[in-house]
Amino acid sequence: MYDAPIKDMLFVMQQLAGLDEIAALPGGEDATPETVEAVLQEAAKFCGEVLAPLNAEGDRNPSRWDNGAVHVTPGFAQAFGQYVAGGWQGVQHPQEYEGQGLPKLVGTPCVEMLNAANLSFALCPLLTDGAIEALLTAGTEEQKQRFVPKLIAGQWTGTMNLTEPQAGSDLAAVRTRAEPQPDGTYKLFGTKIFITWGEHDMAENIVHLVLARTPDAPEGVKGISLFIVPKFLINADGSPGARNDVQCVSIEHKLGIKASPTAVLQYGDHGGAIGELIGEENRGLEYMFIMMNAARFAVGMQGVAVSARAYQKALAYAKERVQSRPVDGSSKAAVTIIHHPDVRRMLATMRALTEAARALAYVAAGESDRAHRDPDEARRALHQARYEFLVPIVKGWSTELANEVTSMGVQVHGGMGFIEETGAAQFYRDARILAIYEGTTAIQANDLIGRKTLRDGGAVVKALIDEIGRTVTELVAQEGAAFKSMANHLALGQQALGSTVDFVLANAKRDPNAVFAGSVPYLKLAGIVLGGWQMARAMLASARLMQDDPKFHGAKIAMAQCYAEHVLPQAVALEASMVSANGTQGMLALAEDQF
Amino acid sequence: MYDAPIKDMLFVMQQLAGLDEIAALPGGEDATPETVEAVLQEAAKFCGEVLAPLNAEGDRNPSRWDNGAVHVTPGFAQAFGQYVAGGWQGVQHPQEYEGQGLPKLVGTPCVEMLNAANLSFALCPLLTDGAIEALLTAGTEEQKQRFVPKLIAGQWTGTMNLTEPQAGSDLAAVRTRAEPQPDGTYKLFGTKIFITWGEHDMAENIVHLVLARTPDAPEGVKGISLFIVPKFLINADGSPGARNDVQCVSIEHKLGIKASPTAVLQYGDHGGAIGELIGEENRGLEYMFIMMNAARFAVGMQGVAVSARAYQKALAYAKERVQSRPVDGSSKAAVTIIHHPDVRRMLATMRALTEAARALAYVAAGESDRAHRDPDEARRALHQARYEFLVPIVKGWSTELANEVTSMGVQVHGGMGFIEETGAAQFYRDARILAIYEGTTAIQANDLIGRKTLRDGGAVVKALIDEIGRTVTELVAQEGAAFKSMANHLALGQQALGSTVDFVLANAKRDPNAVFAGSVPYLKLAGIVLGGWQMARAMLASARLMQDDPKFHGAKIAMAQCYAEHVLPQAVALEASMVSANGTQGMLALAEDQF
Repeated sequence: MYDAPIKDMLFVMQQLAGLDEIAALPGGEDATPETVEAVLQEAAKFCGEVLAPLNAEGDRNPSRWDNGAVHVTPGFAQAFGQYVAGGWQGVQHPQEYEGQGLPKLVGTPCVEMLNAANLSFALCPLLTDGAIEALLTAGTEEQKQRFVPKLIAGQWTGTMNLTEPQAGSDLAAVRTRAEPQPDGTYKLFGTKIFITWGEHDMAENIVHLVLARTPDAPEGVKGISLFIVPKFLINADGSPGARNDVQCVSIEHKLGIKASPTAVLQYGDHGGAIGELIGEENRGLEYMFIMMNAARFAVGMQGVAVSARAYQKALAYAKERVQSRPVDGSSKAAVTIIHHPDVRRMLATMRALTEAARALAYVAAGESDRAHRDPDEARRALHQARYEFLVPIVKGWSTELANEVTSMGVQVHGGMGFIEETGAAQFYRDARILAIYEGTTAIQANDLIGRKTLRDGGAVVKALIDEIGRTVTELVAQEGAAFKSMANHLALGQQALGSTVDFVLANAKRDPNAVFAGSVPYLKLAGIVLGGWQMARAMLASARLMQDDPKFHGAKIAMAQCYAEHVLPQAVALEASMVSANGTQGMLALAEDQF
Repeated sequence: MYDAPIKDMLFVMQQLAGLDEIAALPGGEDATPETVEAVLQEAAKFCGEVLAPLNAEGDRNPSRWDNGAVHVTPGFAQAFGQYVAGGWQGVQHPQEYEGQGLPKLVGTPCVEMLNAANLSFALCPLLTDGAIEALLTAGTEEQKQRFVPKLIAGQWTGTMNLTEPQAGSDLAAVRTRAEPQPDGTYKLFGTKIFITWGEHDMAENIVHLVLARTPDAPEGVKGISLFIVPKFLINADGSPGARNDVQCVSIEHKLGIKASPTAVLQYGDHGGAIGELIGEENRGLEYMFIMMNAARFAVGMQGVAVSARAYQKALAYAKERVQSRPVDGSSKAAVTIIHHPDVRRMLATMRALTEAARALAYVAAGESDRAHRDPDEARRALHQARYEFLVPIVKGWSTELANEVTSMGVQVHGGMGFIEETGAAQFYRDARILAIYEGTTAIQANDLIGRKTLRDGGAVVKALIDEIGRTVTELVAQEGAAFKSMANHLALGQQALGSTVDFVLANAKRDPNAVFAGSVPYLKLAGIVLGGWQMARAMLASARLMQDDPKFHGAKIAMAQCYAEHVLPQAVALEASMVSANGTQGMLALAEDQF
């Protein structure tokens, strides 16, 4: 059972992420309120009715490898057919390649629903989105025409081939070779691992985007190029032709997302896999980063999605399971467990965290739209910088939080949570990959410090901190305990973020180990405070709109208060861990042989 | 691979838990330093060589049900034979029933090793310990003689039968019936679920301790009696005779601890299962609580154990896996990942948390020994009260922390952590039950507030808070950044605990929902501060002993500093969540239909 929280999605899009403004930008004409709501309703229907029921089945009956072929969970191929027939692969992609050209802000709730319904399934379109993004960025017009419409139509799917056994987080260590051929193509040789949906039988072809080195390429990350290597070579008429020399030699046995085949791909064991260069030689990592930014944002959305789904499941159980009398003596009989304060605490925390993470991610999506569509170049650059600042936070924070939220989901179920048939444990297992793939939380945090904080001298984050200050001023002007509480805790969080940024800026050069030992605390702190800021903006909007729907807006204000009092205080604790110069000394004081 | 941390165990036993004093109490004569170290060495050998290698096998090849019988993982029955042959079941049990009569403080590291090596396996002896405890508490001398030596000898194992489908946390809802027979026995009828090691083929008999109601028993928890229901009835000569009417109708398919069979037991489908009353009628829950206190403590040790094992595995990987150049530019080549600051942060945090939880648990075990062995009755009562205060914290905090630590263990492994063959994921899955069974964290937290804080007006906890203050004074007198940092953060933690206790005492009657919505934060806060106190005591001891072993004691001081700066600050955040009167309002403000 999955019932998409469309009301909250629309509220966030409209009140926090600026849907109306984005719709008013060039190319946003189609994103009328009616269209957007209709798109969300249709997505909710498809995800709830078709994909959600297949989620548990994918866990029980994962993709299986058989002699180089991968057979997906029964029902997945049909569902994928419906997915592409509905046009869902093209929501955010350009109309000139047969996409729908809607803003990322509108595509984002669709991505959330897809992942909430079925994380394993959703990974296939997620990777295809990444391949489309890379082709649109670096491909020639001919390449775009040849591949993108087929990918949008779901005839073909896409993959990202980065990791090798010795090259995980460290892409400098990539060894796959690409040898130029007289006809302008390349022959690829090497092993790629952890390739999500790297082999399957849901589509007629698979377009692998592969990082490899040409002969004489410089060492390290500056010698990596990006290649298109289709599973079946493309005939002159655009149809799939001969089988290329790329083989799936095994798939992994994983903790979660079991329906999503994670392939080991062997290139060139029979003479070389034929590939074509995309973009310029040795600029592969740069293109891959564009694709990765999109993918990282999407993985952050997976965190929001699985949290939202786990919350729904826990809530349904808490409303149904009868156990124990209430602690306040208000009933002599046992009550449903939602009446017990600790269950209430867990549900409220799950929901507040999920709402905050959703709001921050949608706001980031809105920044991306403005970065692409604002007619003013300087404003585009500002929005792009803000989007890029937010991506590692959306990715890192939403996924770490998903571990916490899905764990609370198990806990609400008590002993039944540990029984696989209940389904709560699947969300817990599935969620665990999110803080790892597409760059672990530490990789996100290094990016946040290095490229996103140090490079601009903290300009982007300081502007955000100033805006948080303005929100605090607005909160102070409001009446009521909830607003006072948020004003107080958000101000403390804002200060904590500010002093942490100052610490990073002052010490990164002088003592990089001390700063980077606090990189994940910094990322979490930023997520907590920026998420809290969105909750504060939400409660201000709800105060304005209260009369329209007192039940909904009352809940938004209560959730913001819950977040202020139970989540925001962690920011100050994280600041203590990060800023105290001694803090990281204690962390790093042990010699390797003392461990 | 499991290499028991005997050095840290002995340090904690001697420097923090008072092994020498306990050995000097009546009945402690056998616990000489030489004997204790020999016992630990032997336990480490057995656990490392026999049990640890079976752990992954138990996950791959779980116990399986076949027509009422349960066949355990290959190798488990032989290992169990070696376990009992080694006398391990009897370590803490009285010599008069053929146990070894060693203090609980000495038994506790053995329990830790057993669980670190193999959590699923260790559950069988853990439950048998519980059954022995219940028999010793409430059984007649004849019952003790008939059952306890066989349980200690491992010929028979024991179980606890509490849960029924409608009676989980709420034992008032138990419905299993016990009908008195003319010969003084009872016939039992009902269904029990979640019975750990409720059926298996490792021993010749299974002694079920079963909660049930006699006819005309009062409703609720005051009408529950405790019965012994052996799988095979006992012949006059003490040997197992006819099969009793208790059947294992299925076992659960679980997230973790898969080798440990979790049985559904059906009593009385063929005329009634024959049982005998233990102790007095209607006092069953009282006896069960004694057994449960021991079991809850042991589950807390499971949390310490699985954390310690996960740390060892992550550490080994971090020392072996080469990836990326160091952030400080100290090497042009890629290094082992232990050189990356965030990996260092994770490993140090895993270790500091595990050491703190171990120290607190061992100190609690020492309190239990003093409660049993101190010649002075008043002192016995004080120690008993302190032990009882600590049990829900050891249980609740160590197990919540195990979720965190095993998750970091997965994270250190990166993508490999998500692959089941690596083994890190098993610890993560296995650990997840610990905060649920033997009373969820909320149940522990309710106990901590209700029976352990309110009932004595906070006397026990306030005495502990005063002692923490004396430790702070000692820290202030020391030189060096580590001690200053601990003095500062421990003092803040002490204040946070104090004000939270005051809040609980002042408001529990007036506003029970507000207080109980903060019960888990209170428990975690208490764990963090009391664990930090032990880390502070450890660093003071290490300062005194530094010359003996600079590497070991230097590491203890560094870990204490790490804990002070990265864990203790959370106490202040938890206080903010708990004490703010508004805090729990925000949490409880939503009406059921707003969720």
